[in-house]
Amino acid sequence: MTAATPSPKKILIVSAHPDPRSLNASLTTFAADHLRAAGHEVRVSDLYAMKWKATVDADDFPDHPADRRLHVMAASEEATLAGRLSADVAAEQEKVLWSDALILQFPLWWFSVPAILKGWIDRVFTAGFAYGPTVAPPYSEGPLAGRRALVSVTYGARETAFSDRGIHGHLPDVLHPLQHGLFWFTGMAPLAPFAIPHANALPQDHYATAREQYAHRLDTLFTAPPIPYRTLTGGDYDHAMRLLPHTEPPGTTGLSLHRR
Amino acid sequence: MTAATPSPKKILIVSAHPDPRSLNASLTTFAADHLRAAGHEVRVSDLYAMKWKATVDADDFPDHPADRRLHVMAASEEATLAGRLSADVAAEQEKVLWSDALILQFPLWWFSVPAILKGWIDRVFTAGFAYGPTVAPPYSEGPLAGRRALVSVTYGARETAFSDRGIHGHLPDVLHPLQHGLFWFTGMAPLAPFAIPHANALPQDHYATAREQYAHRLDTLFTAPPIPYRTLTGGDYDHAMRLLPHTEPPGTTGLSLHRR
Repeated sequence: MTAATPSPKKILIVSAHPDPRSLNASLTTFAADHLRAAGHEVRVSDLYAMKWKATVDADDFPDHPADRRLHVMAASEEATLAGRLSADVAAEQEKVLWSDALILQFPLWWFSVPAILKGWIDRVFTAGFAYGPTVAPPYSEGPLAGRRALVSVTYGARETAFSDRGIHGHLPDVLHPLQHGLFWFTGMAPLAPFAIPHANALPQDHYATAREQYAHRLDTLFTAPPIPYRTLTGGDYDHAMRLLPHTEPPGTTGLSLHRR
Repeated sequence: MTAATPSPKKILIVSAHPDPRSLNASLTTFAADHLRAAGHEVRVSDLYAMKWKATVDADDFPDHPADRRLHVMAASEEATLAGRLSADVAAEQEKVLWSDALILQFPLWWFSVPAILKGWIDRVFTAGFAYGPTVAPPYSEGPLAGRRALVSVTYGARETAFSDRGIHGHLPDVLHPLQHGLFWFTGMAPLAPFAIPHANALPQDHYATAREQYAHRLDTLFTAPPIPYRTLTGGDYDHAMRLLPHTEPPGTTGLSLHRR
């Protein structure tokens, strides 16, 4: 029994695997139990169990006239500001706002999130809620600032294939659309991803080790330093949103440009 | 009227926007018409019109026993090799095999494909069809070799934000999971992406210009040089799938490591 922490926090875990007996489902249960034992509040969105609708369409915006062309960003902003989003989307937005930290738990499918989780992102992070002219600017104090964000991912490949010289690409680069594009863009502070390789045939003792490592990541969810991405308004970018010349250490290219 | 080319080809366009009046739908129609006028055969998978099921689940593998844990890769391979995939997935695989080139047409949502298109990728590119021990190795002569692949994407941001020093990340890096992770991994030869910025409010004359540029990309679909990614078996990587030391030009870091 872990003693309650001095400051209990609220954590939302979004989990995406079709089988409740899967490694991913086990990690979600483990994380929820571990965080609760430490005194935190936890809510879980188990997307497959919820039969989460993955595709953005006109039904997401009940007031949108059927005969008017669907500009998704505009319709999404209108519905958000009017408080007229579909009920499932509104419920998830409420959970995100409630949370102090967001954990995404998923198997890496085609170098990205499973479609059902992409659909949670596409539908929940509407204009007017997570980005857009009516809220705080991106990559700065963004509308979801004050929250931490952790990717917990499993993949079948060996670890070296996702290392800094691995053929699949360095994992933080492969996850850039999530880490920098979703979390940081909306103001959340992303932590280094927690990843379990060889996940298609994980021996039982590896699972025990992985769980210990994950426990450590959960214990430091609110104290570990986030990834030091640059801010848009911190003086590093020009008005066209390009990194100013000579801002990076010599020899840096690619996505690492955007870290301090 | 364009004269028929000496060697007509087969092109599959997969299109993902909820509104048939959208810019993306217009680009799909334009591309299909343009390619057909040049003598090619074209098939279109309009995912929203097809009400494409986005989520991988046990229903994709009709023979999988409900009481057995669903290991997605293993179940996918078993069903593929037995010819027992669900009918919608089998139909799309037939189209991919029929094609000489694949075009993905989509709006960039959260720095990636819309969930419905991710679901097309997740469900159609099964083990035993697109990857896995029973087919040709990845990043080499892969199982889908001989095909070209083009991303045609629209996004709301300005172009500089996706330039080589742009805050969103350089577009080819942001698209790495598709270009290198899906296309190149499975053996397809990816071309540089075709992108239309400012897509939320594109003036009519910009659309005309974009269409001309797209026409040129379509005219050179089978002649433009593909992105020169390295092969896994070409001597650049070690047995742990890491790029060998000193293989890249000095100062190269990040995802560009994997281009020759």
